[in-house]
Amino acid sequence: MTTKRIAEILRQGNPDDRLTIQGWVQTKRELKAFSFMEVNDGSCLANLQVVLDQEMADYDRVLKSLSTGASVEVEGVLVASPAKGQRVELKAETVVVYGEADENYPLQKKRHSFEFLRTIAHWRSRTNTLGAVFRVRNACAAAVHEFFQQRGFLWMHTPIITGNDCEGAGELLAVTSLDLKNVPHTKEQTVDYSQDFFGKPAYLTVSGQLEAEVMAMAFGNVYTFGPTFRAENSNTSRHLAEFWMIEPEMAFCDLEGNMDLAEQFLQFVFKSVLEKCPEDMEFFNQRIDNTVLATADNIINNQFERVTYTEAIALLEKAPDKFEFPVEWGLDLQSEHERYLAEKLFKKPVIVTDYPIEIKAFYMRVGDDGKTVRAMDVLAPNIGEIIGGSQREERLDILENRMRSHGINPEELWWYLDLRRFGTVPHAGFGLGFERLVQFMTGMGNIRDVIPFPRAPLSLDF
Amino acid sequence: MTTKRIAEILRQGNPDDRLTIQGWVQTKRELKAFSFMEVNDGSCLANLQVVLDQEMADYDRVLKSLSTGASVEVEGVLVASPAKGQRVELKAETVVVYGEADENYPLQKKRHSFEFLRTIAHWRSRTNTLGAVFRVRNACAAAVHEFFQQRGFLWMHTPIITGNDCEGAGELLAVTSLDLKNVPHTKEQTVDYSQDFFGKPAYLTVSGQLEAEVMAMAFGNVYTFGPTFRAENSNTSRHLAEFWMIEPEMAFCDLEGNMDLAEQFLQFVFKSVLEKCPEDMEFFNQRIDNTVLATADNIINNQFERVTYTEAIALLEKAPDKFEFPVEWGLDLQSEHERYLAEKLFKKPVIVTDYPIEIKAFYMRVGDDGKTVRAMDVLAPNIGEIIGGSQREERLDILENRMRSHGINPEELWWYLDLRRFGTVPHAGFGLGFERLVQFMTGMGNIRDVIPFPRAPLSLDF
Repeated sequence: MTTKRIAEILRQGNPDDRLTIQGWVQTKRELKAFSFMEVNDGSCLANLQVVLDQEMADYDRVLKSLSTGASVEVEGVLVASPAKGQRVELKAETVVVYGEADENYPLQKKRHSFEFLRTIAHWRSRTNTLGAVFRVRNACAAAVHEFFQQRGFLWMHTPIITGNDCEGAGELLAVTSLDLKNVPHTKEQTVDYSQDFFGKPAYLTVSGQLEAEVMAMAFGNVYTFGPTFRAENSNTSRHLAEFWMIEPEMAFCDLEGNMDLAEQFLQFVFKSVLEKCPEDMEFFNQRIDNTVLATADNIINNQFERVTYTEAIALLEKAPDKFEFPVEWGLDLQSEHERYLAEKLFKKPVIVTDYPIEIKAFYMRVGDDGKTVRAMDVLAPNIGEIIGGSQREERLDILENRMRSHGINPEELWWYLDLRRFGTVPHAGFGLGFERLVQFMTGMGNIRDVIPFPRAPLSLDF
Repeated sequence: MTTKRIAEILRQGNPDDRLTIQGWVQTKRELKAFSFMEVNDGSCLANLQVVLDQEMADYDRVLKSLSTGASVEVEGVLVASPAKGQRVELKAETVVVYGEADENYPLQKKRHSFEFLRTIAHWRSRTNTLGAVFRVRNACAAAVHEFFQQRGFLWMHTPIITGNDCEGAGELLAVTSLDLKNVPHTKEQTVDYSQDFFGKPAYLTVSGQLEAEVMAMAFGNVYTFGPTFRAENSNTSRHLAEFWMIEPEMAFCDLEGNMDLAEQFLQFVFKSVLEKCPEDMEFFNQRIDNTVLATADNIINNQFERVTYTEAIALLEKAPDKFEFPVEWGLDLQSEHERYLAEKLFKKPVIVTDYPIEIKAFYMRVGDDGKTVRAMDVLAPNIGEIIGGSQREERLDILENRMRSHGINPEELWWYLDLRRFGTVPHAGFGLGFERLVQFMTGMGNIRDVIPFPRAPLSLDF
């Protein structure tokens, strides 16, 4: 007897197929001569309807134990379904109940708020919405690897624990093996890190970019896809303390090549998810945010507009809209400005490049004008900023000066500077937060609902 | 002018192809009328030979700057190569030197020890061996995803920061936002964790298994592939403080299904790496460990032997070999015992199952005899243990008792127990360390040489 996943049965099953399914009871309806139950096995949003005939052996006993949440194995034969919206249903011959679920099972039929579901994160994946979210999350993650592997990029695991504190100052989580009850001190009354596991202060990484640059300088094209951390004390719907980042880095590449890659990347990933999870995406469009399919479509089918920051400022100054925040060369673009450009003006994704040097990171390549850096932000309608990247500064002297003006001691990043001392090359890359991507794709309002076990201030359950 | 990767040129390039390459100079030989240089771009082990004709514009100046480590872009035409071992070489027409490298470039021609190379981890990927390692690492990682995605397993990101300290007691690294110089204390003179980022003690995860079980209970088949941590204070060639783990978990699965998956998994991954990196694997076999190809072959082409621990003990008792450690029912198998079984007795991979309950973890399913648990270890010739797994205990009362006898408070893992309270199912899974896998695959002696930036006691560079 073949065991089949419900997704496959609903797609390809035919009347008279004999098979077994395994899953959890969603609902049960008892009628006179027979009963129905809906079974879900997580392979898709839809349940398979199972018909239980009174003639079945042990009917009464079995039926009693088939409450919502019970785990079952059903053997039977597919029959054409008279019910609307389903091609086939399973006529049960034998039902094995592995585990019953009594009335304390938290996911009874009524609707639950996402907030409540976070308190039962070990159950919420069985709900329609969270189930769809994590299937889409997987499809999206698989598409990321597929995209880069097809193009010869190597997946590189950059370190999670780092001694570099230069990038995320103030937002770092420390890693230690010291006894916090009794931290050893030196004679000078500073922490005696010589007794710590790494012999010096250690932190959780905020980005793998600098190490990805190292690897790109040997392999050409690489990407990271790993967890990163921020100790931001902000309990918002868009921040996590622990999230996954994707950071491609390309040697012998300038900002043009970087923009091309970002555009191809987003189009590939959105397209791939639509192909692999059409039912889940349709569900999000109907139940969560009715713009998600249009947004995906817009990203997939448009050539991204490319404007410089300076051009963007001019366009914003001419805008008929009233903005809350000032529009002025030298100030960063606010969300309202980005939305105007992508949603109202161009009505498609926009890549804004060449931002003022003062508002961007030290590693971005200084433009020929000396006033801008070769940065890029990808903005999408209904989403806002989704990708940030830049061509990197490959010139040793300029990079050293930029580090100093950012208060970074060049000696601490001697190895990063070494890449510019010997055989330096133009190179570029970008980064995007994976959970943000999944959030945008699904329309989910709170980022805590697109990662299985969210970590945030005072939030460390499961 | 098409820019091509050297791997592609060596595989598919034909004389008269006009193209551009980008990479780093490995060596240069100056002759009278012309010179040669070898260029590597990280796409493969082999270099492309470039011929520089004296007639070339700017010959002298260009030649001078082409020292080892310099970054170049060469435009030219492929010609059939008279040299042995290469089909084509590139006749340069123009050479752009992006970055020179003087005599201080650390990778001059002479050989370096792996130990020295660890001190210049930002350069070592340009050496033959480490370059090959990281290409194989990528191919292996990609194969892992391919294997599971093809079979409908969802990649699940289990948390990196955890509040559960029950699994890795004593080997945990703590995560904190407290000021270590001045840790706040409560009135009772304990650490005041209410002021810490998560409001309670936080650690780096040692395994995603428990959370993977949660996800398997909704989606059926899932896997993790993420970083895990051990604060083991052992500076060995087989331990890292930070390493990546792969942990599949399957609902409605017993130990048989688990063994099937482990066998298919190893065979798939080894086969895939041999297909994608034949040149690199050949290199390891010639230069690092002349058993790696035979081992891969052995894993791919044999049905794994399956014996119980009890059978294994009987076989070891009958062995003609003298063992250093005692062979006795109840004691764990030592490396010498495992090697005897896999290398001498069966001469192929062996799965040992049903270990004594006393020597295994609390979550493993208790066997019908009450004396063993449904654990499995996969042992391979020349490698030893490569995979460990088990069917999980799905019976609430037995699991609670097992936790108590392991000194674990069941209330701390209430959510894990909940999975057994409502709709429990038989399920199983296994885990393997990704770096160990790459180490075995490549024959590299030290695990620090198969991860880009290794973390170990007192080791936190880059």
